[in-house]
Amino acid sequence: MSTTAWTREPVRRPDAAAGEAARLRQQRLTKPPGSLGRLETLAVRLAALQGRARPRLDRVRIVVFAADHGVAEEGVSAFPQAVTVEMIRNFARGGAAISVLARTLGASLEVVDVGAAADPGPLPGVVAARQGAGTANFTRAPAMTPGQLAGALGAGREAVARAREAGCDLFVAGEMGIANTTVAAALTAALLDLAPDAVAGRGTGVDDAGLARKVDAIRRALALHRAAAGDPMEALRRLGGFEIAAIAGAYIACAQAGIPAVVDGFIAGAAALAAVRVRPEVRPWLLFGHRSAEGGHARLLAALGAEPVLDLGMRLGEGTGAAASVAVLRLACALHDGMATFEEAGVSGGPA
Amino acid sequence: MSTTAWTREPVRRPDAAAGEAARLRQQRLTKPPGSLGRLETLAVRLAALQGRARPRLDRVRIVVFAADHGVAEEGVSAFPQAVTVEMIRNFARGGAAISVLARTLGASLEVVDVGAAADPGPLPGVVAARQGAGTANFTRAPAMTPGQLAGALGAGREAVARAREAGCDLFVAGEMGIANTTVAAALTAALLDLAPDAVAGRGTGVDDAGLARKVDAIRRALALHRAAAGDPMEALRRLGGFEIAAIAGAYIACAQAGIPAVVDGFIAGAAALAAVRVRPEVRPWLLFGHRSAEGGHARLLAALGAEPVLDLGMRLGEGTGAAASVAVLRLACALHDGMATFEEAGVSGGPA
Repeated sequence: MSTTAWTREPVRRPDAAAGEAARLRQQRLTKPPGSLGRLETLAVRLAALQGRARPRLDRVRIVVFAADHGVAEEGVSAFPQAVTVEMIRNFARGGAAISVLARTLGASLEVVDVGAAADPGPLPGVVAARQGAGTANFTRAPAMTPGQLAGALGAGREAVARAREAGCDLFVAGEMGIANTTVAAALTAALLDLAPDAVAGRGTGVDDAGLARKVDAIRRALALHRAAAGDPMEALRRLGGFEIAAIAGAYIACAQAGIPAVVDGFIAGAAALAAVRVRPEVRPWLLFGHRSAEGGHARLLAALGAEPVLDLGMRLGEGTGAAASVAVLRLACALHDGMATFEEAGVSGGPA
Repeated sequence: MSTTAWTREPVRRPDAAAGEAARLRQQRLTKPPGSLGRLETLAVRLAALQGRARPRLDRVRIVVFAADHGVAEEGVSAFPQAVTVEMIRNFARGGAAISVLARTLGASLEVVDVGAAADPGPLPGVVAARQGAGTANFTRAPAMTPGQLAGALGAGREAVARAREAGCDLFVAGEMGIANTTVAAALTAALLDLAPDAVAGRGTGVDDAGLARKVDAIRRALALHRAAAGDPMEALRRLGGFEIAAIAGAYIACAQAGIPAVVDGFIAGAAALAAVRVRPEVRPWLLFGHRSAEGGHARLLAALGAEPVLDLGMRLGEGTGAAASVAVLRLACALHDGMATFEEAGVSGGPA
């Protein structure tokens, strides 16, 4: 039987010496100090996380965790639950947004079915780690049993182990699951003690009536599971979802393995918040790819002290915002590695 | 003798039919409508500009225009004027930030010396189009003679002609010139009727005393050239610089040739403002790559109704912010071209 004991194992510390070496190198490159803005600080941060003065992002791993949610029966989504499995097939065939981004970036893509309502059966590039045919409806019962929570967290950990085996400079977790903005909003509200309407947005595009049902479902769930709010692992079990728990597990495993992870938008952000509440030492290993158009994301980012790389009004999920940011992170690494120093170039005005 | 008559020749119109075809395609791709945010609107916009329903950014041309400025003698920059030529050599040798970005993006890079204080002599990849050994100090006289203005504008036009000859899906203009944030600020203040301290920033890093000298130099220049404020071409001549005029010329030539251009930060933005004031029909051909950390840039962007792609606190120039945005624009094109439609993927919930 799965347990969550591994989540308490030690987490790596960023390499301060590598970070300092990178910072000093940035000062010697032929540009006014600081003039590349976040392209400088991101390179320095990646150096510390990767433990090398010149970080690289050659091997990027993207894993999309897909699952369904009992709360979908409350009418909180603009799309039917069948779409979760249809999209798993679309990921596998290469037609989804994240498939295209992975191909364009030369990143490896894996899909993990943590428990869609329908079993898609064997598909190339899809790992079956099903914890059930969707979670329970959390307005009536805990979303997961303790065994399911442990299984979902473990699915994230195993995905990181496979990524590490294949070679991984950077890990991106994405998600797919009809109704999962409702789940992310409920979990965020519980962990940050916020009102449902402060975190519930239109997700993939619910109308006013759908949004009202969403807020009401979250309100009922928060009331039912009130006692769990102070325990992040228990809040994750009662108010989370299989893919959200898997992503939280992946972030903890990344921090344990010393692999930097780029967090996607609102749903992955809720998983990041849960992971950081369970293990605060995970936080340094997380970069934030983009600011989602989903309203609750701003609260999440503020709570995590996160400043995303991109702000493009995206709200798709699948890991697309995080993947898009990889293009920028790579430019940061290329500049850090490839620019001449003042001495090399014979340019006046370097550091005294 | 050069004239500016060509700037009044017809400008192309974006292809509304190609834009509409792209918009309809976006609605059919397997994602909730609008969920890729600006990655959708940018692809649609590029489609209209390139006149094809599936835009591409295979051939990106980056041209860095370099020049010096008489106003440097007022002590407005943190760096000595010698750096302009030193950086031209650094561009040519591949050690500068824009060199690294061009290499990483697979973009072709050209440097045009429009008039550095010292003549660098023949260098590979550097085109000599020198209008003088820097402009005149505009606190005492017009920065350029009419012949110099025409020559600088023409240098931009010729760079676009070479780009077009080589094949060009997208044009990026960069700049290098000690003291050119002072010049861009003066020109912006004149064209937007703003106070010097509303547009003058620390540029590459002047201290408080340098910033005060900068504001004072702009104040004196605006007073001397007050009569030109209503005539954008004359304001460009009196308060601009060779590289700024060349970039303005390049934007006008891009619009005439039907090539979209990505505008860099504050200095390229001042050139864009001048170009748009001279020829308002140029505006649709300009995308904006990034929001610069230089304070005056926000005023410029607002005046142009521009929403940049990136906001990374960059303030280097050279075209680096625009070049960085190309990585994101390419992802927009890849998604637009490579994603499956709802019908192709058999996913529920497409457009009715």
